[in-house]
Amino acid sequence: MMSLPEDMIGIYTTNSEVLVVPTCSELPVGNKSHSNSGPCCKERPFVLDMSTATVTRGKLEVYARLEKSMPLNWATDENGTATDDPRRVLQNIIGRVGGGLLPLGGSLEDTGGHKGYGLALAVEIFSAVLPGALYANRVYPKSEQGKPLPSGIGHFFGALRIDAFRSKDEFKQDMDDLLHRLKDTPKAEGAKRIYIHGEKEFERAEQLAKEGIPLNRNVVEDLHKIAQQLGITQLL
Amino acid sequence: MMSLPEDMIGIYTTNSEVLVVPTCSELPVGNKSHSNSGPCCKERPFVLDMSTATVTRGKLEVYARLEKSMPLNWATDENGTATDDPRRVLQNIIGRVGGGLLPLGGSLEDTGGHKGYGLALAVEIFSAVLPGALYANRVYPKSEQGKPLPSGIGHFFGALRIDAFRSKDEFKQDMDDLLHRLKDTPKAEGAKRIYIHGEKEFERAEQLAKEGIPLNRNVVEDLHKIAQQLGITQLL
Repeated sequence: MMSLPEDMIGIYTTNSEVLVVPTCSELPVGNKSHSNSGPCCKERPFVLDMSTATVTRGKLEVYARLEKSMPLNWATDENGTATDDPRRVLQNIIGRVGGGLLPLGGSLEDTGGHKGYGLALAVEIFSAVLPGALYANRVYPKSEQGKPLPSGIGHFFGALRIDAFRSKDEFKQDMDDLLHRLKDTPKAEGAKRIYIHGEKEFERAEQLAKEGIPLNRNVVEDLHKIAQQLGITQLL
Repeated sequence: MMSLPEDMIGIYTTNSEVLVVPTCSELPVGNKSHSNSGPCCKERPFVLDMSTATVTRGKLEVYARLEKSMPLNWATDENGTATDDPRRVLQNIIGRVGGGLLPLGGSLEDTGGHKGYGLALAVEIFSAVLPGALYANRVYPKSEQGKPLPSGIGHFFGALRIDAFRSKDEFKQDMDDLLHRLKDTPKAEGAKRIYIHGEKEFERAEQLAKEGIPLNRNVVEDLHKIAQQLGITQLL
């Protein structure tokens, strides 16, 4: 989003520890995030900030804290089988015993899982192979004695000058118009509103800035535990 | 793929007529394709060539010709409801009466449909808003008298110099190593092989160059009809 006030298109990718399971594989090879932003005139900018998995690891952590079971198309267990238990998947990821998040499109080619896996691979190439960082199961290396070494994740940052292609003002007017056209299409049955990427987050940030940030009980308990370990007595 | 012999990463996007239905919407706004390629040393290059829908319109055409019904998570009918009838969807797309292809991730946020819709929108921005081409439901414009005017689809072509970041040879060695690591992960139950994007197509092209290209009966009939219309008597 740093590119937006400069009237540039921002592009960002990062890789991470091994999280996403490739199509036909049992072992995860990495989770990749991908962001893309474009400025507008009057509308809020388009900000797509997504992982290439169906859901992020963070979503599994939320479900684990809420003690909820999750939909079966989000992750696989250590045997490569779909599971609704977020705690088990998170433990498997930490223990690196197999299983992990499914790519966008799920586990099958029929639902486009190979496309999500391909996006993850493209992001890995931009984030790690291009800058010479570490990738796939090399991201968290170990010394010859088996000691964990610092992680080697990588990033790609790009900014594209709009005025190298056309007038910035014309671009931003067309962005406004495109987003209006999308929001004005007829809504599917039961849907209240068509969102543009970034809109929910901008609105939520404004709301929480006014009302404060609600914390889940389990998060507060975790914070108290950490505070205790660190000898901090005044937390809130 | 033109970038590969130059040791560059190729990036390509295009927009198209309105095909993909945004999350929460009933009307499609465009289908977008996206390609990405990276050279290797010994391995075949990584070539990701995908639409941002779960499947392409071409896949529906294949199902229609084979007179097969399709999985319910590929497309919606004119009421925004899932349908297994490829002919109906194709007719609706031509008639522009609503419904169309579902984005990668499907119709729900639970399965990441908003991510596929976001990728489609990013591709629309690169292909059409950036170069000043036409987008969304403006792609096929009409004159004031209602006559169809030429289409205004756009494209984005990019090539990234690898040696602006690091040594080309090191990049290609790491690409080989990354692809090996992916292919060597344990296979999911019932899976025979883990593919890299582009591999199936390279192998199929080699096979068909030797054995010839099999044609579906309905395709041959269509070709004969067109030949007849054009007065061509010798087709094969």
